[in-house]
Amino acid sequence: MGSNSFRLQIARVLDRQLFTLDSLKETVRLGAGLDADKVLDETTRQRALACLARFGERLRGFEPAQVRVVGTNTLRVARNAPEFMREAEALLGFPIEIIAGREEARLVYLGAAHAMPNTPESRLVVDIGGGSTEFILGSQFSARVTESLPLGCVSYTMRYFPDGKITRSAMRSAVLAARNEIQRISHTYTREQWQLAIGTSGTARSLRDMLELNDWSVRDITHRGMVQLSEAFIRAGCIDALAINGLKPDRAAVMPGGLAIMMAVFEELGIEVMCVGEGALRDGVLHDLMGRQRNHDQRELTVAAFARRYHVDEAQADRIQPLAEQFYRQLSGEDCEPDTLRQLRWAARLHEIGLTIAHTAYHKHAAYILQNADMPGFSRREQSELATLVLGHRGDMGKMQALVEEPDRWYAVVALRLAVLFYRRRMLLDLPAQLDLQARARGFALVLDGAWLDSHPLTASAFEQDVAQWQKIGFKLELVRR
Amino acid sequence: MGSNSFRLQIARVLDRQLFTLDSLKETVRLGAGLDADKVLDETTRQRALACLARFGERLRGFEPAQVRVVGTNTLRVARNAPEFMREAEALLGFPIEIIAGREEARLVYLGAAHAMPNTPESRLVVDIGGGSTEFILGSQFSARVTESLPLGCVSYTMRYFPDGKITRSAMRSAVLAARNEIQRISHTYTREQWQLAIGTSGTARSLRDMLELNDWSVRDITHRGMVQLSEAFIRAGCIDALAINGLKPDRAAVMPGGLAIMMAVFEELGIEVMCVGEGALRDGVLHDLMGRQRNHDQRELTVAAFARRYHVDEAQADRIQPLAEQFYRQLSGEDCEPDTLRQLRWAARLHEIGLTIAHTAYHKHAAYILQNADMPGFSRREQSELATLVLGHRGDMGKMQALVEEPDRWYAVVALRLAVLFYRRRMLLDLPAQLDLQARARGFALVLDGAWLDSHPLTASAFEQDVAQWQKIGFKLELVRR
Repeated sequence: MGSNSFRLQIARVLDRQLFTLDSLKETVRLGAGLDADKVLDETTRQRALACLARFGERLRGFEPAQVRVVGTNTLRVARNAPEFMREAEALLGFPIEIIAGREEARLVYLGAAHAMPNTPESRLVVDIGGGSTEFILGSQFSARVTESLPLGCVSYTMRYFPDGKITRSAMRSAVLAARNEIQRISHTYTREQWQLAIGTSGTARSLRDMLELNDWSVRDITHRGMVQLSEAFIRAGCIDALAINGLKPDRAAVMPGGLAIMMAVFEELGIEVMCVGEGALRDGVLHDLMGRQRNHDQRELTVAAFARRYHVDEAQADRIQPLAEQFYRQLSGEDCEPDTLRQLRWAARLHEIGLTIAHTAYHKHAAYILQNADMPGFSRREQSELATLVLGHRGDMGKMQALVEEPDRWYAVVALRLAVLFYRRRMLLDLPAQLDLQARARGFALVLDGAWLDSHPLTASAFEQDVAQWQKIGFKLELVRR
Repeated sequence: MGSNSFRLQIARVLDRQLFTLDSLKETVRLGAGLDADKVLDETTRQRALACLARFGERLRGFEPAQVRVVGTNTLRVARNAPEFMREAEALLGFPIEIIAGREEARLVYLGAAHAMPNTPESRLVVDIGGGSTEFILGSQFSARVTESLPLGCVSYTMRYFPDGKITRSAMRSAVLAARNEIQRISHTYTREQWQLAIGTSGTARSLRDMLELNDWSVRDITHRGMVQLSEAFIRAGCIDALAINGLKPDRAAVMPGGLAIMMAVFEELGIEVMCVGEGALRDGVLHDLMGRQRNHDQRELTVAAFARRYHVDEAQADRIQPLAEQFYRQLSGEDCEPDTLRQLRWAARLHEIGLTIAHTAYHKHAAYILQNADMPGFSRREQSELATLVLGHRGDMGKMQALVEEPDRWYAVVALRLAVLFYRRRMLLDLPAQLDLQARARGFALVLDGAWLDSHPLTASAFEQDVAQWQKIGFKLELVRR
């Protein structure tokens, strides 16, 4: 669900390769529906929902694990995205992930890399979308540096070429504005960092077509060629009058902004020539989905990297994780959700990352980081869910009130919180032989060996102290001796 | 302004040593005034304000740089602290700093260390206050590990010995509750980490007096001695009936809680014997103040440490800092405040620390860290002010609206923001020979060389793009060619 077009791609996996079976595209121009207050207007909303209803029909019968739906910049910034998402998910029949800019960049690279020969050169991939542009340095299948800037062919065309008028000064302003954004990152994308520049978007493809067909470049995209194209645009004076070989009418509507951004990219990053790659975000999303099913889950790598970056005490995480899992399995029984279990494991590994900021209220700092950080492989929603799990592991329970209505995630919170209570001393512990966590009506009972409890009065006291927090949300936590 | 007592200490500096001239103490019991919702009640508020009015009289005529007022745990947690602070500052005539728990720990250690021989052993210092207990590992004059836990002799006596009743089970519950808190940190304070245990608070002093005078210990505080004392407390049955050699009536009112906490400290940290040190928080505050005046400012060390911890691009900070300073001096002219200038310098060094969390909205992440982190040497208010400066360096200006009324800090925000605009490209720049920032009515004008501007269109465009943000708060930002 891009800011320019929505695309549906269906592929079959054969021998670890993706073979596209079906591919739909609708130019929804979601980004053009944002008003000055970043609210998505009604017409655009309806257009987008109608498209999703059609896509939903095509997707009927797929298993949830086979489908991945991602939204990008416009959904990242639209104030009324939450309402829109609810309706959209109902029509589509699958959850939608809004992905962060850097995650988008990672997936773009993954898509581009799989469409190229697996050669060892260093690559710069630039993906100009409808609402944002992604910049990636990488080689082979791994993205080394990722950035996303709020430069889009839809938003720039609307802002600098209102009513479709193209003037020299508007083009100049648009290029300068884009260069200003890009200069923030240009020091990490210097000419020494890459050997091959690749453009992956519709903007790049259209630019290449126009330059080659009109002999403004021998091949690929060049700055000199774009200058000639820009002169042709200015001569035409407005979008409706553009009649240029290789320019599709659909693309023309967002081309002035796209051209300005690409010229700015060339000028700021010192690019002489850029080739056009097939494979982009949608392909990356599919490759990532396939990776998850084959145990190459980017999210596992990210959790491990975060544990290192934030100096997590791994021994403590190793102690808490299995007990939290045990508690969650006991509570959920046959309804045990593998997704929730995986998230609980990650939460157990990362619940102490907030300690790098401060000891006081560290669970809140951890939740803040998880909510806001760039976490490759995770969607915004997954980050939020992880943050909530971590937030609930200590302190006030009032904030967990809303979760009680979602038994599955609520059980995960309870499991982590109780596991943490057992290991407050941060040492190995001989757990009681019998240790059963049971859900009761508005409460939980932890059934355990009485003798063990007598010899661990501190743990018993830790539970007693937590009881008051549970009462706040009308829950009873009890220790039951067996 | 402690949770048990307020103290005023006046010292003269002679030959780099502090000589106490005057010392006042009032047992305000601020911590006892907190109700279940953490609101300070009216009676306690009035008692505290009356005390501060008396202290204020004694302080009349002192220079602001000579006075430092700090508040601890009760003011950290009281919901109505802000209103109380306003009245308190008016009566006292000086600003009050609420310090974080770890900062309190650092200052306690500084005070204790200056009252001891400068020997090289590793020390454990424990300071049981009215609302919190600080734990410090250090040697000579430096604290290596600091922690603060919400265990106080006032709060624990109120919670576990209501109406002054002392029973065996209440004592047991109080000790277990305190051990539960302490076990969270016990793994970093193990017995191998220190050679000498020192108690610095009134609780420690009173315990030592009672144990020694009643022959429950040969000297210093021991666990065996405290067990005998605790039996005597339980026999008495209530605070009013306590008649123990060495126990002052004033101290008796908070002693059951203090005793329980100290027993828990001994049990959790494996202490056999603890001596009592003179010198505590108030002495540490004075030594720290003296250090600042002699260029040993802890805050400078903290800023440098944060720049390292959060991987700040020092070269960029080096570029921005002098330009921000130049702008601030131009705006403030004769009203240039050294404190603000220092804070602006720190903000210039730390404004990019949020990048470790994410690029998107990194100024907000930086502000979050500065607001919440343990920053040795800084008060909460200073952290807030620093966070505001950093928050204003890019993005939405609406949030800066309130600051416009405080010209001095507003000028600092403007100076940092404009300096950052100049260095977006993160490279050395030949600044224009003439570069004057001038305050106008509801606006600012940057007067500079026209030729320079023509050869730096990107910088000009960066300013133009920022103009809209300034308009939001009714300000005009203009570039004026000279």
